[in-house]
Formats: sequence, structure tokens, C-alpha cells
Amino acid sequence: MGAGSWGTAFAKVLAEAGTEVTIWARRPEVAKAIDDEHRNPFYLPNAQLPPVRGTADHRVALDGADLVVLAVPSQSLRGNLAAWRDAIADDSTLLSLAKGVETGTLLRMSEVIAEVTGAASDRIAVLSGPNLAGEIAERQPAATVIACTDADRAAAVQKACATGYFRPYTNTDVIGAEIGGACKNVIALASGIAAGMGLGDNTSASIITRGLAEIIRLGVALGAQPATLAGLAGIGDLVATCTSELSRNRSFGYVLGKGGSMLEAQAATSGQVAEGVKSCTSVRALAAAHGVEMPLTNAVHQVCHSGLSVGEAVENLLGRRVKPE
Amino acid sequence: MGAGSWGTAFAKVLAEAGTEVTIWARRPEVAKAIDDEHRNPFYLPNAQLPPVRGTADHRVALDGADLVVLAVPSQSLRGNLAAWRDAIADDSTLLSLAKGVETGTLLRMSEVIAEVTGAASDRIAVLSGPNLAGEIAERQPAATVIACTDADRAAAVQKACATGYFRPYTNTDVIGAEIGGACKNVIALASGIAAGMGLGDNTSASIITRGLAEIIRLGVALGAQPATLAGLAGIGDLVATCTSELSRNRSFGYVLGKGGSMLEAQAATSGQVAEGVKSCTSVRALAAAHGVEMPLTNAVHQVCHSGLSVGEAVENLLGRRVKPE
Repeated sequence: MGAGSWGTAFAKVLAEAGTEVTIWARRPEVAKAIDDEHRNPFYLPNAQLPPVRGTADHRVALDGADLVVLAVPSQSLRGNLAAWRDAIADDSTLLSLAKGVETGTLLRMSEVIAEVTGAASDRIAVLSGPNLAGEIAERQPAATVIACTDADRAAAVQKACATGYFRPYTNTDVIGAEIGGACKNVIALASGIAAGMGLGDNTSASIITRGLAEIIRLGVALGAQPATLAGLAGIGDLVATCTSELSRNRSFGYVLGKGGSMLEAQAATSGQVAEGVKSCTSVRALAAAHGVEMPLTNAVHQVCHSGLSVGEAVENLLGRRVKPE
Repeated sequence: MGAGSWGTAFAKVLAEAGTEVTIWARRPEVAKAIDDEHRNPFYLPNAQLPPVRGTADHRVALDGADLVVLAVPSQSLRGNLAAWRDAIADDSTLLSLAKGVETGTLLRMSEVIAEVTGAASDRIAVLSGPNLAGEIAERQPAATVIACTDADRAAAVQKACATGYFRPYTNTDVIGAEIGGACKNVIALASGIAAGMGLGDNTSASIITRGLAEIIRLGVALGAQPATLAGLAGIGDLVATCTSELSRNRSFGYVLGKGGSMLEAQAATSGQVAEGVKSCTSVRALAAAHGVEMPLTNAVHQVCHSGLSVGEAVENLLGRRVKPE
């Protein structure tokens, strides 16, 4: 459900693992290209898909589906689910690819799914890991985490998408798998800012490490296992997003680090505000609600939304007094 | 004690933190350049040092020293310490910058120090983190870990080297701080091999994550705290080494990944065998002695020492059956 680059690439993985796939696309021309040519020229133009079906009618896509893969943007998930819920089979598995914390409610995506569909938590799974869509569409080796409180259901999803190049690991820690994905774009903005300021590999590695530490603090406060965040859905996804030149959040931060304005950063990165610019606000609010200190997220928020200069932000972070790790 | 690039850069940090510093260099011409010009044209040519003393006589350097910083290569530490031990003051702190596992004995550097000098463990500290010497010499922001079983002694070392740009965190987990540094070069070789094969950011992030997992398994078997390895001395140092174009181990692996021979890789990286090529053997032996599975380290060992092709190594790693994370 969703034919963006990651939704399309994951549909390709499922089909290549031997699973029968129908892709729902919001735009009829995308659905038609997928159905007729097995290609998505709009969001994954270089990939040839196996013979999957495409449709813009959610009822066609959901009819008889054992596994419903939710691949729409995090802030659109609630609205889409409200339109789809009556067509979702009662015993199907709902797998979320969406990463984020809902603005306003501060709910994780699995919580939004439970609230809107009424599904029990053991039917809801999330997939998260270092999974840049373009590389996976090229069948480059990648690993990911499939988390579900019901281990058997996680294993069934794992089986549905395991291929020679795509290696899913199961986990029962849904909260941990979601928090890593929700927070990483904010830290990627910080990495980009530092790189734009001319700071090197020590700084980048320190930002990733201290970023992971604050993500773990938040995760633990919410009930996550630290080991999940030290794994593919935490540090793995964080490293990929913070170091890849393909990451839009990193590129957006890079322009800010060079001294550019928010508008200049937006203009330099395909005209859209980076995801981390929005999510730093909801992540910060979630942290505040649980009494968790997140200095990097806070600094990114101040740079993006309170006019703090990047130089002042670095000074504030380094000025914190020395203490035990 | 040791005027390589990291020894010299760390001496600069100490001096800039207000600590009185004498640098011992093996080669008299290095000692003379440091003493006369406050420069090390051989190993850190672009840095101007504060007024530190230089000497090639270890007795001059060690006389009255409260803090003895050991900055010689890991496989040379034992021999050097045997020559120095009688000149080391009984109550001084011994701080190790050396990273590795001693070939043959499979001892960590702090264990070598204890064995050769007879110092109690509460006098021995180690420093480890994402600390590329060239960047620190340029005063770029960096963080590190100082580990000692005596927290007060760790705090004293912290105070001796804390500056506006260099931020040390204390820790009492010496084993954890040492294992990260000893294992990271092997994983950096694997990262370089993957990059040389044309694999992208997902693969790189997965190698770092699974590399960290096997480092944590080894560390825990030896008595380390997982949190240390999820921190600056573990994931921080690992990320810096695996992603930096300045990393010699990564560059060495890159040539192998392109299909080059060991000799070609050596020729392309300043004529020396990369540290990870040697340490993969001792780390693998240490893991075997403790019944710890380290598939990436094992694959690197087979590529470097048993003629396994890089393609076969990737196939072996991906061929492992799917399982819980």
C-alpha cells in the first residue's frame, strides 16, 4: 500500500522471494505503469520489477491479502488507514514500513495502526533497517529487522521476503525497531550540519555515537530493548542515513552547515523540507514528556526552528561539562 | 612515550589542556625537531605544537612523570616497557594509547603493561575513541573514553587532557575500551572490501552493525560491558575507521575488493601491511579460545590468509540461514 521508492523496492523483494504481490498506488498512472510494464518510472525508474500487479483501487489490493504492507508517509498513515480499514481482512498481518512519530499525538506508527484499525498488537509488525531503496532494487546485499510481539508472525513475514540478497532478522521488540527509524533523520541533519561546517570523520563518528546514546535513552524510557537499538534498526539505519550521500536529511543539514538558510537548504534538496526538520519537533516533545535528555535533537530543533546559528549549536554541545560516559 | 602521529597529537592536546609534557621519540632527529622547533615533521608535519620538550632518552622523559602515556605500536609495547620499567615512578599512572591483542599471548595491552611492569590494575588506564590524529591536531571537535578501574584516576587523566575541542568521558570498563580498538581494524578491512566490490551504503552500515555485534559478543565473553562497546570506544571508533577515507585498513580492503592481491593492496597503502591483516589472526584466536562466533573476522582472516576470494566470502556470509537478530 504505497508505491514510493521504498514501497516499490520492497514489493520487488517480496515478489523475488516468491510471494504474490499487488501494489496499490495513489496515482492511477503509477498503478498503470506497474501493472502494464512492471516498472515505476516515477519513483524507482531504473528497476525492472518481476510480474506484480498494480492498482489504484485499495479494495482490489486488499482483497484476500494475508500481508498488508503499509508504505505511505508517516504523517499520512492515519488518513489512509481510515479509508482502508473496512477492506482489511480480520486475520491479516499489518506490516509498517513508515518511520516517524505522529505530530500532535506523539504516537508511534504501530500505535496509529492499532488505534485506527483496532487490530491487536500481535497482528502488527514493523520493518526497519539500513535499507536505501535504490541499492536494494539493484539487489545489493542488505539486512533488516522484522519486529512483532508474535514471534511466529515475524517469522512468517521473514519467510515472505527473504532472498539471496535481502536478509531479514526477526525481533519481538516493536518499540525499539520503531524508535530508531523515527529518530535517525534528526541525527542525520546534525551529521550534515557538521560536514557542512568542514568538520571531519571524528566529529561524524561522535555525532553518530552520541546520537545513538540519546536514541537509546528515549527508547528505554518507552520500553525498548537497548540491544535492538544497537542492531540493524538502530545503529545500522543510523549509520546508513548519516553517512550516505544519498540521504536527503544529511544533504539538507550540509547546506545549513555551510551557512545557508532553511529556504536555501530546501531549494538544494529537491524543494522539500527534510523529514528530520519536522520530526525533530515531535521527537523532542516525546522526549520531554518522558523526561529524557536529547541534546543533539534539541540542538537541531533550535537551529531549524528557533534561529540558533550552527556555530552556537556546536559551542553549546561542546560546552557541556565533562562527565562519565 | 612514542612520537607517531597519534602520540604527537595527543601530546599537543595534553599541552593545550595546561599539562606539562615531554615527548620521548625513538629517533633522535624526531626528538630534536620536537624540542627545537616544536614540530614533528616526520609523523605530523602540518601541526605546530605548543612548547613541549622532546628527548630520545627514556630516563629524561620518565623522570618525575605522574602520567606515562604509552603510544608505541601494540606489538612493540612489551619490548619497550621491558627497557623502561625501572625508570617509571611507582605511583605514576600508565595510560595506554596502543590498540591491539598481542600475537602469541593473546593479551590485551593493559594486561601486557601489568605483566611487564608489575603495576596494579588501578594504576593502568586506556584511552580509546574516534580519534583520527590529523583532525585532532587541527583542533576539530572530538570525544574519547578514558577507562580505568580506579574512577578517581580516570578523572585525573580526564582533567589532564580536557580542552575546548577534546572531550574525554570516563569509564571503569577497561576491557570494553580495549576490545573495541583491537577489533575495529578487521571490520574496517571488511568495509573496504565491500566498497571495492561496488557495494553501497546499506552493505557498509550492515557490516558495521554486524561487526559491532561480534565485537560485543567477544567483549562480553571477556568481561566487558556492552554499553562501553555501544559508546565512543566501540561503535564510535568503529564508524570512524570504517567510513573514513583516511583509514589505511579500509583502503587496503578496497584494493582487495577490486580484485587486487595482498601485495597490490600493500603497494597501494604506503607499502605496509594493514594492521587488521595481522590482528584478524589474534582476534580470531582469542574468539576461538572463548567459544565466540565472529563470522566477519573469520571471513577477513580467510581472505587475507587462506586464499578465499572476496566473492566467496560474501556468499558464505549471506548464505548463513535466517534467524532472530
